[in-house]
Amino acid sequence: MVDRFTGVLAPVSTPFKQDLSPDTERLVALCRWLLNEGADGLAVFGTTSEANSIGMADRMRLTEALVEAGAPAAKLLPGTGTCALSDTVALTKHAVELGCGGVLVLPPFYYKNPSDDGLYASFAETIERVGDSRLQLYLYHFPQMAGVGIPLAVIERLVAAYPDTIAGLKDSSGDWANTEAVIKTFPSMHVFPSSEARVVDALKIGGAGCISASANINARAIRALIDVWDKPEGEALNRSVTAVRKVIEGYHAVAAVKAILAEFSGDPAWNILAPPLAPLSEPQRAALVASLKDLGYSLSLRTA
Amino acid sequence: MVDRFTGVLAPVSTPFKQDLSPDTERLVALCRWLLNEGADGLAVFGTTSEANSIGMADRMRLTEALVEAGAPAAKLLPGTGTCALSDTVALTKHAVELGCGGVLVLPPFYYKNPSDDGLYASFAETIERVGDSRLQLYLYHFPQMAGVGIPLAVIERLVAAYPDTIAGLKDSSGDWANTEAVIKTFPSMHVFPSSEARVVDALKIGGAGCISASANINARAIRALIDVWDKPEGEALNRSVTAVRKVIEGYHAVAAVKAILAEFSGDPAWNILAPPLAPLSEPQRAALVASLKDLGYSLSLRTA
Repeated sequence: MVDRFTGVLAPVSTPFKQDLSPDTERLVALCRWLLNEGADGLAVFGTTSEANSIGMADRMRLTEALVEAGAPAAKLLPGTGTCALSDTVALTKHAVELGCGGVLVLPPFYYKNPSDDGLYASFAETIERVGDSRLQLYLYHFPQMAGVGIPLAVIERLVAAYPDTIAGLKDSSGDWANTEAVIKTFPSMHVFPSSEARVVDALKIGGAGCISASANINARAIRALIDVWDKPEGEALNRSVTAVRKVIEGYHAVAAVKAILAEFSGDPAWNILAPPLAPLSEPQRAALVASLKDLGYSLSLRTA
Repeated sequence: MVDRFTGVLAPVSTPFKQDLSPDTERLVALCRWLLNEGADGLAVFGTTSEANSIGMADRMRLTEALVEAGAPAAKLLPGTGTCALSDTVALTKHAVELGCGGVLVLPPFYYKNPSDDGLYASFAETIERVGDSRLQLYLYHFPQMAGVGIPLAVIERLVAAYPDTIAGLKDSSGDWANTEAVIKTFPSMHVFPSSEARVVDALKIGGAGCISASANINARAIRALIDVWDKPEGEALNRSVTAVRKVIEGYHAVAAVKAILAEFSGDPAWNILAPPLAPLSEPQRAALVASLKDLGYSLSLRTA
C-alpha cells in the first residue's frame, strides 16, 4: 500500500489561456515550484483549482501532462468526484492507472439532501467499479460549496466496508467540531482541515496536515510550521502563517490566490479565471496586495 | 428559425439497467409513448431524468439513439448544462448538430453565488463557442436544486445580446412571482413553469406551457388541459390534473415518477434509480399508488 498523504498539500490553482483552455505549461511550472517549496502533495483539481469548470477530457489530459513532465505521480491527489458515477469512475480509474497517490472525491453534488444509503452507494459503486487495490480514496467534505456533505454515519459505513481504500478526508466545512469528530472517530483516516489556521489544532489530536487554498502561495511557511508547531518557535510562525491566511479570507479565495500568483510572479496571465468565476476587481486586488506587503509577504515564482 | 416549443414537455425519466447504465430500449419506448400521448416535446436530461447522474458519453449516445430510433429531433430539448464550459459546449454542439429543437441549460452549478458577470459569461461563451444560428437555448432556473439560479438582470443581458438564440426559460423555482416576471418582462421568451398546477396561470399571461416531472405519467391529460383551459370544461380538468400532481409532490418527484411508471406499466425495472437517488420505500410506494388509484388514475404504457 502506498504511503498516505501527510503535511501540506496545495489544491493547485489552474492557469487558463485567453481562450479559457487550461494552460499546461504554467500548471507544470507551478507544480514544480510548489514541490520545491516543500508541498507534500499536489491536490490538483480541487475547488481552488476550478476543477468543476474544467471539462472531463482536459482534466485527464492535464494529469497525464503533469506525470509526463516529471511530477511524481505518488505526490498527486487529483479531484475526481463529479455528479455522475460513470464520469467519477472514469476520472478515478485514470488517476489510479497513472499511479497517483490518491484521489479526492466530492459526493455527487447536484441532487441535494441525498439519503445516507444513496451517498454510501455513490462512493461504494465508485470503489467497486474502479476495482483496483491501489485506489486510495480521500473523501471531500465541503457542504457549503457542494451543497452536499458527507455525514459521519456514511464515513463509518465506508471505513468499515473499505478500510484499505478509504484513506482520509479533506474537511472544507470550516466546522472544527466536525474535523475533530472525524479525526477522533476514524484513527485510520488521514484528515486535513482546509486551512493552515487550523493545522496545529489538527496535528495536536492526530490530524495529518492541511490541504489549503493558500498553500498555493505560502507552502514553504506552512511546511515549516508543520515541522516546528510543538517547538518554541512554533507559536510565532503559526501567527504569521495565520495572518496571511486571514488576509486571503477577506476575498474570494480562488480569485485571491490567482491575484497573488499574478502579482508576485510578475505574470498577469494568472488573473484569468474560468466562468462563472471572475478575477478580483482592481480595488480588491490592490487592497489584497497591499495587505500582504504590510505583512512582509513575498514569493519568488516564475511560471512564464 | 425553428418553431419554439409550446405546450407540455416531459423531462423524460431515464431507465437504468441493473448495472446502472442507461437502458436505451426502455427510454426509446417511453419517448415514443409520450409523443403518442400528446407531449409536445421531450426534455430529455432534465432533473427528473437524473441527467446529472449520467456521464457525458452516455448522454451523447442516448440522444443519438433516440434520433436513430425515429424520435423527431425537432421535438427534443436535451439538457446540456454542466459545471464546465467545455462540457456544456460539447453537449450543446452535439444536440444542435443532431437537429434538436432546443437545449435546456443549467448555469454552472458548483460555485455558489456567482456574480452576474460570471453567469452571463457562462451562457455567452457557450453561445459563442457553439457558434451555430440553429441554437435555441432555453435557460433552466432551479435555484433550490442547482444552488445557482438565473436572475432577471442576467436574462435581460442575454436576451439583449442574443435575441434569436435565447428561446425561453424553464422556471423550476416554484416561485410564481418570478415566473410571472419572466413572462411579462421578456415577451419573446417561451416560459414554462415546472408544474401543470401553474400552467393555466401561465397561459393566461402569455406563458408557453409547462415542463413538468408529472408529464411523464400524465401527458395526455395535461395536453387536454392546455387545449381547453379557457373553455367551460377547463376548470374540472384543471382540478383533476392538479390532484394527480399534488399526490406526487408528497414524495421525491424523481423516485415517484419511476414508481408510477413501474406500477402502471407492470415493468419493475423502472424502479432503478442512479445513486445518489434511491427508489421510494415500499410503504411510500404503496401509499403513492393507492392515492393515485383513489383518484381513478391509470395509464397504459408498455416499455418491456
